[in-house]
Amino acid sequence: MQKKNNFNKDNQKQKPQKGRKTQNNSPAKQFKKSSSPKSRNGSAKKYRKSFNELPVKISFLGGLNEVGKNMTLYEYKDDMFLVDCGLAFPDPEMLGVDLVIPDFTYVEKNADKIKGIVITHGHEDHIGGLAYLLKTANIPVYGTKLTIGLIQGKLKEHGILSSAKLHEIAPGDEIKLGGFTVEAIHVNHSIPDAIALAIKCEGGTIVQTGDFKIDSTPIDGGMIDLSRFAQLGDEGVLALLSDSTNAERPGYTESERKVGESFEVLFRKAGKGRIIVATFASNIHRVQQIINVASSLGRKVAIIGRSLENVVNISAQLGYLNIPENVLINADLINKYPAENIVIITTGSQGEPMSALSRMAFSDHKKVEICPNDYVIISATPIPGNEKTVGKVVNELLKLGAQVIYEKMYDVHVSGHACQEELKLIMGLVKPKYFIPVHGEQKHLRKHAAIAEGMGIPKENIFIADNGYVAEMTGKSIKSGAPVPAGKVFVDGYGVGDVGSVVLRDRKHLGQDGIIVVTASVDYETGQLIAGPEVVSRGFVYVKEAEELIAQARKVAEKALENCYYSNISDINAIKNKVRDAVSHFVYEKTKRSPMILPIIMEV
Amino acid sequence: MQKKNNFNKDNQKQKPQKGRKTQNNSPAKQFKKSSSPKSRNGSAKKYRKSFNELPVKISFLGGLNEVGKNMTLYEYKDDMFLVDCGLAFPDPEMLGVDLVIPDFTYVEKNADKIKGIVITHGHEDHIGGLAYLLKTANIPVYGTKLTIGLIQGKLKEHGILSSAKLHEIAPGDEIKLGGFTVEAIHVNHSIPDAIALAIKCEGGTIVQTGDFKIDSTPIDGGMIDLSRFAQLGDEGVLALLSDSTNAERPGYTESERKVGESFEVLFRKAGKGRIIVATFASNIHRVQQIINVASSLGRKVAIIGRSLENVVNISAQLGYLNIPENVLINADLINKYPAENIVIITTGSQGEPMSALSRMAFSDHKKVEICPNDYVIISATPIPGNEKTVGKVVNELLKLGAQVIYEKMYDVHVSGHACQEELKLIMGLVKPKYFIPVHGEQKHLRKHAAIAEGMGIPKENIFIADNGYVAEMTGKSIKSGAPVPAGKVFVDGYGVGDVGSVVLRDRKHLGQDGIIVVTASVDYETGQLIAGPEVVSRGFVYVKEAEELIAQARKVAEKALENCYYSNISDINAIKNKVRDAVSHFVYEKTKRSPMILPIIMEV
Repeated sequence: MQKKNNFNKDNQKQKPQKGRKTQNNSPAKQFKKSSSPKSRNGSAKKYRKSFNELPVKISFLGGLNEVGKNMTLYEYKDDMFLVDCGLAFPDPEMLGVDLVIPDFTYVEKNADKIKGIVITHGHEDHIGGLAYLLKTANIPVYGTKLTIGLIQGKLKEHGILSSAKLHEIAPGDEIKLGGFTVEAIHVNHSIPDAIALAIKCEGGTIVQTGDFKIDSTPIDGGMIDLSRFAQLGDEGVLALLSDSTNAERPGYTESERKVGESFEVLFRKAGKGRIIVATFASNIHRVQQIINVASSLGRKVAIIGRSLENVVNISAQLGYLNIPENVLINADLINKYPAENIVIITTGSQGEPMSALSRMAFSDHKKVEICPNDYVIISATPIPGNEKTVGKVVNELLKLGAQVIYEKMYDVHVSGHACQEELKLIMGLVKPKYFIPVHGEQKHLRKHAAIAEGMGIPKENIFIADNGYVAEMTGKSIKSGAPVPAGKVFVDGYGVGDVGSVVLRDRKHLGQDGIIVVTASVDYETGQLIAGPEVVSRGFVYVKEAEELIAQARKVAEKALENCYYSNISDINAIKNKVRDAVSHFVYEKTKRSPMILPIIMEV
Repeated sequence: MQKKNNFNKDNQKQKPQKGRKTQNNSPAKQFKKSSSPKSRNGSAKKYRKSFNELPVKISFLGGLNEVGKNMTLYEYKDDMFLVDCGLAFPDPEMLGVDLVIPDFTYVEKNADKIKGIVITHGHEDHIGGLAYLLKTANIPVYGTKLTIGLIQGKLKEHGILSSAKLHEIAPGDEIKLGGFTVEAIHVNHSIPDAIALAIKCEGGTIVQTGDFKIDSTPIDGGMIDLSRFAQLGDEGVLALLSDSTNAERPGYTESERKVGESFEVLFRKAGKGRIIVATFASNIHRVQQIINVASSLGRKVAIIGRSLENVVNISAQLGYLNIPENVLINADLINKYPAENIVIITTGSQGEPMSALSRMAFSDHKKVEICPNDYVIISATPIPGNEKTVGKVVNELLKLGAQVIYEKMYDVHVSGHACQEELKLIMGLVKPKYFIPVHGEQKHLRKHAAIAEGMGIPKENIFIADNGYVAEMTGKSIKSGAPVPAGKVFVDGYGVGDVGSVVLRDRKHLGQDGIIVVTASVDYETGQLIAGPEVVSRGFVYVKEAEELIAQARKVAEKALENCYYSNISDINAIKNKVRDAVSHFVYEKTKRSPMILPIIMEV
């Protein structure tokens, strides 16, 4: 793909009519400038008239009743296209699972109809499933420059970059995908280059916000293109799919610039101490602000943490990060400078056990040893479920004597998602006939639906979906269509989908109670015990202190085997069951624990 | 023990001079009325003069750098006594562990010197380890009426009630424990009958707050006895040990009465719907308020949840819960009444998977089926780490159509712990020479220490301890003594302490990656393979879809065994290692996973 350098990084509103043809390998005819705004009444009427009786179908393949693995399929007549293909991080009960991706069954089945996949932004929950999808269906991918840059990095890791069909688009561009025309609209978010989509077909126009917030003073890239949302609203919008992440939070999300102001204050407070800031790897604007303040105070900046180094490199190369000369230093050199001249930007703001900050806190980092003069800023809020891991990291840093700025002590973090007043604003501008809250758990979706109802959208025009649901809408009504396959596919090592509920149930059992293996050799013909039984346990008791218990369990197994022999029970499964029951019962009586009992009887 | 009915339940301040001899089986001479307040200057001088050069020692056996298992040992000359003996709930990484108790090594070693154990209140983190302690050292236990009532229930479950030496005390009472005199002081908390302790010996007076808040309008039992804290402060206090739980929170904790006002509003909002309120089992005042509002609106109340039923029974018997006639109904009868006439009080406010509310949410409760008219109030804030489990319950309830009041939507919960302004107030009244923040993680202890420093306590007089630390203090200085054994002892089923780091490491490995067992029989004399190898896996892959992989692993194991035979390797451990390495390497190459490999070689 060609690199372009004309991305508008001025703090100016990007007008959709400035949209330009993208310079990439895809057929130029796919891209059109978005039409200039029409007279409000005229166009609105036109759009409203054109609602066809054939329904537009939206299949939700991920992102509902969960946080993560966002994926939506649009269908009109014989054409389909996808929006986003994210991953989710495993819940604690998904033992040993590395990551979770959507179920691609329905996509694979319809691969020939699917004209493309449009990505709204470069976060893992929107791009993380893409490498797995493209391995099964090599669908053309459309995204903005930074998004494509981040995707390239991922596909390279998976060894499928060369075969992928990646197309770069810019806000204002229109992509033709069969009977659909998809327009990219600039929005604000916690990663640069995020877009909303206006999706047009004969059936009507649908607006999908992607993840967004309204930031009137963003660090770069300009304010969200509110006027384009207004124009679309005036032209007539069939449905709005809007980001529900912060639907429970009243008011407005603060501008990213607020965090920079806090850094100004805190960096001065740090005095002669070394400053360590932990934040999300993809929050380029946050990184930019840290670099700006550090540079203004004559501090050098070191980047530590693999994902952060990766994103910073890509962003700097593509022009999304403006690093003054002689500010960045190699992490190996931090100890060559006085503490007061150093800022370390690092990962681990969620207390992830293997992250750089966590390893620093537990004195397990190769390059950074925390000392009493360190001034640590955790520039993030714990994602629900991470409060305790973040707390642990804070506690350990404090034990080492560092000062730690965390949680709500200062404004060191702002959300990337719209709060209630912003959600209302978008709804008010877009004026959709139907409203579908997306991206969120049930409580977020319900709250967002209540907001829509409060704005005057009739209850029957609000569609609360779940993964696998299909919304079918015409100008007359929105209703549920026949459901499609959707669910969680677990990735564990190289395995995709080979860990399911049976394996997870066994892992849970093993993890909670351990295992006792009972082995014995019996004579193939007579069934008489030849060797064993041996009893070996793992994760059950500390064996050296429980020799007596294990010896008794061995006796119990031996007795069970003998009973089988004398009762002429020769079926190997029957014997196994007798041994399992006997040992299980004995162990429970003695310990009130239920380890997995695994009898292995070998016939010699 | 005799039951007493003269507990002062008026909303009146309990004056320490009202302290009376308790009527129980313990020797009456152990109890004295607390001395009436002396003239401020005179007594203060006297106390300050009496600081002896022999240090008072405080050993911290639990409750520091953690939430839970509070336990503190006081020592002066040859006398010792304990304060509290709590449990902690296991962290997620403590797989299969039921609960965590303190390490009693140091207590057992000094059992003959320990004159008693004084319990500050009846929460699990203060009484939950007692049954285990008394089994090893039958120390006399002192606590207020409700506290003793709850302890009796626990000891009964453990079958040691009859042998236990339980002594009931009341606020204002003094207990003589060797050279120590311990006075109980009434405080407010989220369970009735909580006390702080004034601990006097020749070495000086120490005040330990226990868990407390300042509630000027409590539901029952009267406001915290601030004037007694003031008197002690005027007399001279060597050290203050104070509850750090809310040290990070500015301002004041709201009165429990606030929650009742919210119930008044919300119960009316529920209209004709059934009301379900989830709260902490031990929050008797919360239960009282729910019953009061329900009763005033003509609703019947059903109690659902084992721990709640238990605490409600004990509290009602002992006179801590005032239930109007004909209000309580059996949980089996709830469906015989119209929904609008029912309030269910239940457990599960932390989203605990086996709790009543959780089972209702997942449509798995025998007696309660959630329906769209249900109005659910979660009267609690998620304890850090529980946000996600609570969120899940909320989501499921919403999916069933219920209305749910959760988190900060209304004032349906107040904390039981003092916030910063209350902590300052107590510090200002007690005016201790030394300050030791207790009950909390490092971040809480540090914050509390900073508050003390801000109040003018010199840094060198503030002691931030850890479990196992010993504070040695005289009138001249406070310093760290030789550490004592302290740590986590895991309870799993009947086992106490038999699950340690080795077992947990194995459980983690098994839980994450599963196990592959390789069994084979070899000839005892020649080492030749007679039967097997067999390869059996659990928690690794779904075997039916991975037969080929398992067959290949079997070949790899067979080859390794044959190599041993031909290389004359006959040591059984050497053979096992060869098999383990070969299979492990093969599996990792194929799957990028590392299950536990357990070779079992039987010699026939």
